[in-house]
Amino acid sequence: MTGYDPRLLAWAYLSKVVQGPCPPLSQLVSAVGPEETARAVRERDLSSFLDRRTSARAHLDTSARDLDLLASMGGRLVTPDDEEWPRWRLLAFDALGEARDDGGPVALWVLGSRSVDELVSRSVAVVGTRAASSYGEHVTAEIAGDLAASGWTIVSGAAFGIDAAAHRAALGTGGLTVAVLACGVDRAYPAGHGRLLQQIAADGAVVSEYPPGTTPARYRFLARNRLVAGLSGGVVVVEAGWRSGARNTAAWGRRLGRPVLAVPGPVTSAASTGCHRMIREGEALLAASAADVVQEAGPMGVDGDSGDLARDLDVLTGDAAAVYEALPANGTRGTRELSVDSGVPIERVRAVLPVMELEGFVDSDETGWFRAR
Amino acid sequence: MTGYDPRLLAWAYLSKVVQGPCPPLSQLVSAVGPEETARAVRERDLSSFLDRRTSARAHLDTSARDLDLLASMGGRLVTPDDEEWPRWRLLAFDALGEARDDGGPVALWVLGSRSVDELVSRSVAVVGTRAASSYGEHVTAEIAGDLAASGWTIVSGAAFGIDAAAHRAALGTGGLTVAVLACGVDRAYPAGHGRLLQQIAADGAVVSEYPPGTTPARYRFLARNRLVAGLSGGVVVVEAGWRSGARNTAAWGRRLGRPVLAVPGPVTSAASTGCHRMIREGEALLAASAADVVQEAGPMGVDGDSGDLARDLDVLTGDAAAVYEALPANGTRGTRELSVDSGVPIERVRAVLPVMELEGFVDSDETGWFRAR
Repeated sequence: MTGYDPRLLAWAYLSKVVQGPCPPLSQLVSAVGPEETARAVRERDLSSFLDRRTSARAHLDTSARDLDLLASMGGRLVTPDDEEWPRWRLLAFDALGEARDDGGPVALWVLGSRSVDELVSRSVAVVGTRAASSYGEHVTAEIAGDLAASGWTIVSGAAFGIDAAAHRAALGTGGLTVAVLACGVDRAYPAGHGRLLQQIAADGAVVSEYPPGTTPARYRFLARNRLVAGLSGGVVVVEAGWRSGARNTAAWGRRLGRPVLAVPGPVTSAASTGCHRMIREGEALLAASAADVVQEAGPMGVDGDSGDLARDLDVLTGDAAAVYEALPANGTRGTRELSVDSGVPIERVRAVLPVMELEGFVDSDETGWFRAR
Repeated sequence: MTGYDPRLLAWAYLSKVVQGPCPPLSQLVSAVGPEETARAVRERDLSSFLDRRTSARAHLDTSARDLDLLASMGGRLVTPDDEEWPRWRLLAFDALGEARDDGGPVALWVLGSRSVDELVSRSVAVVGTRAASSYGEHVTAEIAGDLAASGWTIVSGAAFGIDAAAHRAALGTGGLTVAVLACGVDRAYPAGHGRLLQQIAADGAVVSEYPPGTTPARYRFLARNRLVAGLSGGVVVVEAGWRSGARNTAAWGRRLGRPVLAVPGPVTSAASTGCHRMIREGEALLAASAADVVQEAGPMGVDGDSGDLARDLDVLTGDAAAVYEALPANGTRGTRELSVDSGVPIERVRAVLPVMELEGFVDSDETGWFRAR
């Protein structure tokens, strides 16, 4: 222990113990705070689900060492206690159901001196296949470069191919970019991108929900894709094969209510088949330029315009949709009434209402909640 | 006069006099027949609208000469009296409103020995920009070639670029193809395509609603686009610039309830901007292959499967939509009741019901009409 705030140590411990999204743990932290949650984990004083999820690592408290390691690299642990926690972006996770891997991150391990919240307040994910064509890399450079030059932060996964082209385009225009890793930020992965990651950390941020020392694993890539979408106001897929991780990122974008766009290419190119399929099946809008992206992602950015409400209502799922339905066409309702009418537990009603308010679906006054407009 | 049937002479005269679509004239022909209509036109015994439309040419009866000229080229005039009149394809025009240029052709001047009806019973329009890229010509050859090899007739406009590539692909695979001209079939237009048009006539058909001697004019190209869509079970646009006649053909496809598809290309290519725009704005589905086309156009072909009814209902417009709405969810209605309930004149009700039946929206039994399924 080297004089860290016990609360920060608790966050570091919890991040190490759960290794990724865990909505029940996040709910426990919301209810009793990180230190009490850490105690409960250490002493295995938990629901059977949480105990199963944490017991394997509960005895390993490397929090001070992890924080030391990160500090030695100039990094830090960003937690929900911090001003720079990207709470507005991550609120969308609260509107999802209770599935095991649907939550926001417990905390974020960060390299880079800028405020994470400011970095992602106006951000677009630009992702795609590792097996990019020269066309794909060219178009990525154009679209990501134009977006970055207009003040959009480019979020991506630092992989070979489209991801790297997107980060490089942002760096090349003097713009901002965030790399989200599926391993500890102390690891350069892929190994060939060590220098690129240093540049990203210098001008933007390299972030991970996994503590230092964590190695990449397939399930972490899928969780990472979720976080790429979660930290972005929209998702653009530039090239994707028929089976591509980028399509997984796009699916997370849709779940989180982000606009999802895909860039077409020659129908003779295997690298575009996934994009064409997404467009054809209505999973993504066609984007031919940065302007097409801004048209969709703009309203979800800092501008705060809720856009086409009728369309956006389709993105309400699960509890949020049920709560919205329970609101009368005219007049207001209290949270308890909404819980009874919708059948959604009151704590969930309380969780989804602020998200829906932020997204412009509902509003409130002293008499209760009502449908916006 | 060289011994032609007076009825055929009347059709030829009417075709020459109106030069293109004229729903009020078609309705008059339906009511009193071509000879009585021809008499009324000649004697200017007409409604003021029809008189205005026909008076300029009413005194010019070149019908026998026109028929002679076509016969000398091995061609013929195909009329609604003929077995080979493509009545099922053209019925879709009857479901449109009463706008001046929304009708089917009065008659078709044809070069080529095959039955027009059989040629277009399983047909797809493949159209696009004259300023085609080599990518566009390559993709046209692949898609039109695959469709033709699978027994689809390729309908197009014989223009330079995509149209010519589509016709050639069909010819190259030993398939069938139909060229629809905006001038008389005695004219090779464009001039450089004289030989191509001869090949099309030999293996398929060259057709026009304009009598021999008619020269191309801008409004005739727009009317021709309407007929390309009308003679096809679907419309595929391969490359189209921002402003392109192919987008006009696609718009006609949508009006006539045909599936409309567009092929994407590099976003860096100006020749694909129109296709991307149509896909982006929901005016066309993305087609990356002949299989994508068949998936959409198949059900509208001879197979007769009505496909996804919920989606198809969106294509009902004007009178057809009103008549469909007037049908009860359960039970049947007679045409007179439907006319009263829908506010659509009974002759229009009688015109649109068979079209809707053919397209699988409605069905009938001895007690009246009902909604299909």
